[in-house]
Order: sequence, then C-alpha cells, then structure tokens
Amino acid sequence: MKEFELIKEFFSFSQSKSGAVIEGVGDDCAVLSIPDKRQLVTSVDTLVEGVHFFSDINPADIAYKSLAVNVSDLAAMGAKPLGFTLAIALPKVEEDWLKAFSDGLQQASTAFDIPLIGGDTTKGPLTITINVLGTVKTDRALLRKSAQLDDDIWVTGYLGDAAAALGLHGKAQSRQLNNAEHYLWQQLLRPKPPIVFAKKLAKLAHAAIDVSDGLLVDLGHILEQSHCSAKIKVSSLPLSEQLTEFAGLEGAREFALNGGDDYELCFTAKPSMRNKILNLAEDLNINVHRIGSITAGEEAEIQLMLDGKPYKPKRQGWQHFSE
Amino acid sequence: MKEFELIKEFFSFSQSKSGAVIEGVGDDCAVLSIPDKRQLVTSVDTLVEGVHFFSDINPADIAYKSLAVNVSDLAAMGAKPLGFTLAIALPKVEEDWLKAFSDGLQQASTAFDIPLIGGDTTKGPLTITINVLGTVKTDRALLRKSAQLDDDIWVTGYLGDAAAALGLHGKAQSRQLNNAEHYLWQQLLRPKPPIVFAKKLAKLAHAAIDVSDGLLVDLGHILEQSHCSAKIKVSSLPLSEQLTEFAGLEGAREFALNGGDDYELCFTAKPSMRNKILNLAEDLNINVHRIGSITAGEEAEIQLMLDGKPYKPKRQGWQHFSE
Repeated sequence: MKEFELIKEFFSFSQSKSGAVIEGVGDDCAVLSIPDKRQLVTSVDTLVEGVHFFSDINPADIAYKSLAVNVSDLAAMGAKPLGFTLAIALPKVEEDWLKAFSDGLQQASTAFDIPLIGGDTTKGPLTITINVLGTVKTDRALLRKSAQLDDDIWVTGYLGDAAAALGLHGKAQSRQLNNAEHYLWQQLLRPKPPIVFAKKLAKLAHAAIDVSDGLLVDLGHILEQSHCSAKIKVSSLPLSEQLTEFAGLEGAREFALNGGDDYELCFTAKPSMRNKILNLAEDLNINVHRIGSITAGEEAEIQLMLDGKPYKPKRQGWQHFSE
Repeated sequence: MKEFELIKEFFSFSQSKSGAVIEGVGDDCAVLSIPDKRQLVTSVDTLVEGVHFFSDINPADIAYKSLAVNVSDLAAMGAKPLGFTLAIALPKVEEDWLKAFSDGLQQASTAFDIPLIGGDTTKGPLTITINVLGTVKTDRALLRKSAQLDDDIWVTGYLGDAAAALGLHGKAQSRQLNNAEHYLWQQLLRPKPPIVFAKKLAKLAHAAIDVSDGLLVDLGHILEQSHCSAKIKVSSLPLSEQLTEFAGLEGAREFALNGGDDYELCFTAKPSMRNKILNLAEDLNINVHRIGSITAGEEAEIQLMLDGKPYKPKRQGWQHFSE
C-alpha cells in the first residue's frame, strides 16, 4: 500500500486541461483519448544519480530537468504533449525530498502543459525514468530522415550554455557564481524545450532533432538518416552574451558545436518557409537562427565555414564528420 | 554513439505484425498509429536488482518477467498490446548478459505480441523500466471502479504458485528442485498474463485487476473503487496440484489469498455472462474459476467462507479487510 500512498500524496497534482485523460493514476493503466487523424509518439529517458545529475542538486531541479529532457523529444517530433508516466526508484522515503521533487515536477508539468498520468515508485538507487506521450497529425511528425537538399538548417535558442555550465558545479554549490555564470548554470538546470513552437513548426519544417548530445552529433543524425550533408556558417551559431563573456568567442563556438544538454531544436525547412518560420518564432517569443543548409553527398559530412574558409574546431568529439 | 549502437544491436529484433508502428527505434520518438474509436492505455513498472529479482537470476528470465508484469497491466484493462519502451540502467556493458536479456525480451515480445518501439540505455545500478502501451475500444476498458452488485468474481489460472516459489531460490540455484518445486519456480520466473483472453473479456466483464500483490489486496482495490464488498468461497480458490503437494491444502490457500506475483486476472461479471466466459476460456485454453460474488456494503470487506463458516487465514497481510 505504501507505494500507492506515496504516488497519491506527491504525484496526484496533475490534471489535464485538454480532457484527454479519461483515467489517470489509480487503475492498472491510465486511459487516454486520442483525437481523430492523429498518430501517437512516445519516448523514454532515464536519469541516474551520479551519472546524469550531481547528488547535491535540488530535487526540484532534478525533477524539472527529467521531464524537460523528455518533452524535448516530443518537440523534436513537432508533437503536442499528451501525458507522461514517472517511474522512480528511491533509496529511502524522505518526505522533504519527495515534496521538493514533486514541486519541480509540477512546475515542469505546468510549463510544458503535460499531465502526469501514471507511475511506479520502488525502492532502489535513485533513478528517474520518464516516458512521454504526444500526438501529431497523421504523417506530419518531424522525422530525422526527412531533410531535403537545399533546406535551411535552423536552431532555436542559444547553444553551448549548458555545456559551459557543467564545470560550474562547485562554484554553484558554494554560491560563488557571477551573473553570467548564474545564467549558464540555470540553462543547465532548467532547459526549456520550445514545445509550443515545435508543434506549429510541424507544418513548416521537414526534419528535426533536439540538441542533446551537441549540435554536430545531433545534426549528424539528421544527415545520416536523410542521406545528405550540410554546410554550417560558424559565425551564425547563436551564442548568448553570457557564454561569450564566460568562454570568449572561440570557446563559445566550441561549446555550441560540441557541447550537449541544450535541449533546443535543430530543424530543416525549405528556404521558401523563412518568413513563416520567423513570424511564428516572433509570435511565440522564440529565438531562431538560420545556421546553414543541407548539401548533396550521402556521407553525412558537416562542412564548417568561417569568413569563407573551413573552420576546424579544437575538440573533435565528432570524428564521424569531416570539417 | 555507444548507447545507440547498444540499442541497435540487442534491441532491434521487434517488428510489429500489426503495422501500427510507423517509426520504431531510431528517431527522437517512436510514431504509432491508433485505430479509430480506440482509447490508449499505458502503464509503467520498474524492476530493481536485489529488490524485485535476485542478482543471480538468468538475464533472459529477468527480461521475460519485466515485460510480462507490464503486459499483465494491459490485460487488467482488457487492452490489446500496441508496443513497449525499455529503459535500462546497467552497471557495465557485458555482451553475454545483454545477449541473454535480449533473447528473453524477444521471447516475451513474441509471446505477448507486443513490439519494442523505443528505449534508453544508461550506465547505473541495474534497473529495468518498461512502459507498455495498448488500445481498448472507447469506454470499454475494464476499470477497477466498475464492479456491480451481485457480479460473479472470477480468477484466471492458479493462485499462490509464485509466492510459494519465493522460498525456493537457494534450491533452484543448486538445482535441487523436485518436480512440483520446479513447476512453482517456473511460475515465479515466467508469469503468463492471459492477454488474448483479457482483450476478448472486455465486452463480457465489468471490472478487472491483475493479481500482483495477492488476491485479497488486489480484489480489495476493486472493492474500494467500486464501493462494494465481496464474499469468497475458499474452497473455490484455484490451486495447482503442485502447490497443494508443496504446501498442503491449508498452506496452499494461504499462498493463494495473500501471495503475490501471480499475474493472473481477477475480474467481475454479471452472472448471465457465465456461459460466454466459460466458452471464451475454453476456446483459448485458459483456466477460469468463479470464486465468489460482489456484495453490498461500501466498506470493501472481503468475507471468506469455508463449509458455510467464516474462514480466518493465518497471515493477516490484509488488515484493511475483515474476514
């Protein structure tokens, strides 16, 4: 009974506004209605203490990020959030910890408009697995394999902030971050996948992926699956002022190309869609930047250009690709 | 890339026969088609090494059971399996272990006709989280809250076998099980939720739950949510010959009432449905037994009767209920 009581107490906050949740937590399964002419999309991600997050991070931030990184996968499909399940293994039941975790989860659930529909609480090393569900109009999902020759390549938000923040853990815990560092740290803790923008983008774009392993790696997945290559203008990479202040321009570009944990969107679309994409982004107060274009060549090569010359990043975490 | 290669190598066996899987493993999300006039059902369960399974169990058995216990939740809704995601944390990458795990998962995937549609592989203490998806005809899910006064109470299969087997771990590992014990041990390792029967049962029954925490506890959930009580004939509890041989008649009844891990169905249906239910069970070669009926009284009491007298089980793991 304990498991059930736990779930009930801390994880019963979530109610769908959409009415899609017919039965939520409390039966063997949740029951959801799916609108006509929609396909279901689903993804799962696990976060393990000490592997994916530091042990001393606020449980509210752990919860927020756990949901955000999964919502990011929905955004990468152009999907509308439907609901999520939470499976959590906990070494012990600490009410304070659970309260904070539940608060952070609720904040993310509200921010991304995705209700909690079911879960499982067990004893074990701290491990958080979230499975998200969403819907897309039939055959309108933004797939990695759908990029087309001469498509523009776009990204939302700024890149590299979270990767730069990874080294700030000690300073953050001893409250010694300056303003720029504080901003970077927050980007690592609380990614904000552009889920509303992504849903509306589904009818404007061809392919999309979320930037979780670094732009070069993730764009590489699109290129591999679409059997094409890409040219990127390094001067067009979207860099936050804070990142440039923290790492210098060249350092910032390195973080933007090879860093991970951004949870922004990288997508491709026909050049004729530029105005529509810019208008949509402006309406929703989302930053978008056009950083390059899809080129011919099945080798999934990424050609980086700066001032008309090939650009060679220092770190080569992306050996799969040539510069 | 390692994660992706792992998933690809060991977890790419599963293809849907139904054509419901539009995109499987390999994009940000899987994409699934949902037939018209169907609702989606979903459930998640985590199994942790040392908590839910012994560390020395064959990985094939761990995988099989991990999927089976989740499919059991679909059965408890009367749902048709659609697909499942697997999130697995592993302390280290051992090819033999993964091969065996993958084989067991594939056996279960085939047995229950449910394809693997996505996953996440991470480093961490051995933890397996499976999220199952299924479909039901709109408003036909077998809910815990739908039991009605005078309904028959039925169970599938035999109860108590798995609970009796829990004490046989040492003997099993040293290969000293007699025939009856071997049978019991197999019931613990490889539960067989009656998923095909359950789907067809959806139009014959009112309420259902899977027996995972023991009959009294699980039937109790139906009674609480349906605001009713129940009378159970202890002599009608379905007991395997092997369990009676192993534990004696009284011991077997204790295991059947209070044991867990059966992953059989407990369901309620109108008495007028008896013939249809028996015919369906016969067609599908499923054992079903009528063990009692739903009675008035919102207290969710379970009255156990044997030879016309109240029966008092020795273990009282079900203090919530009166005898």
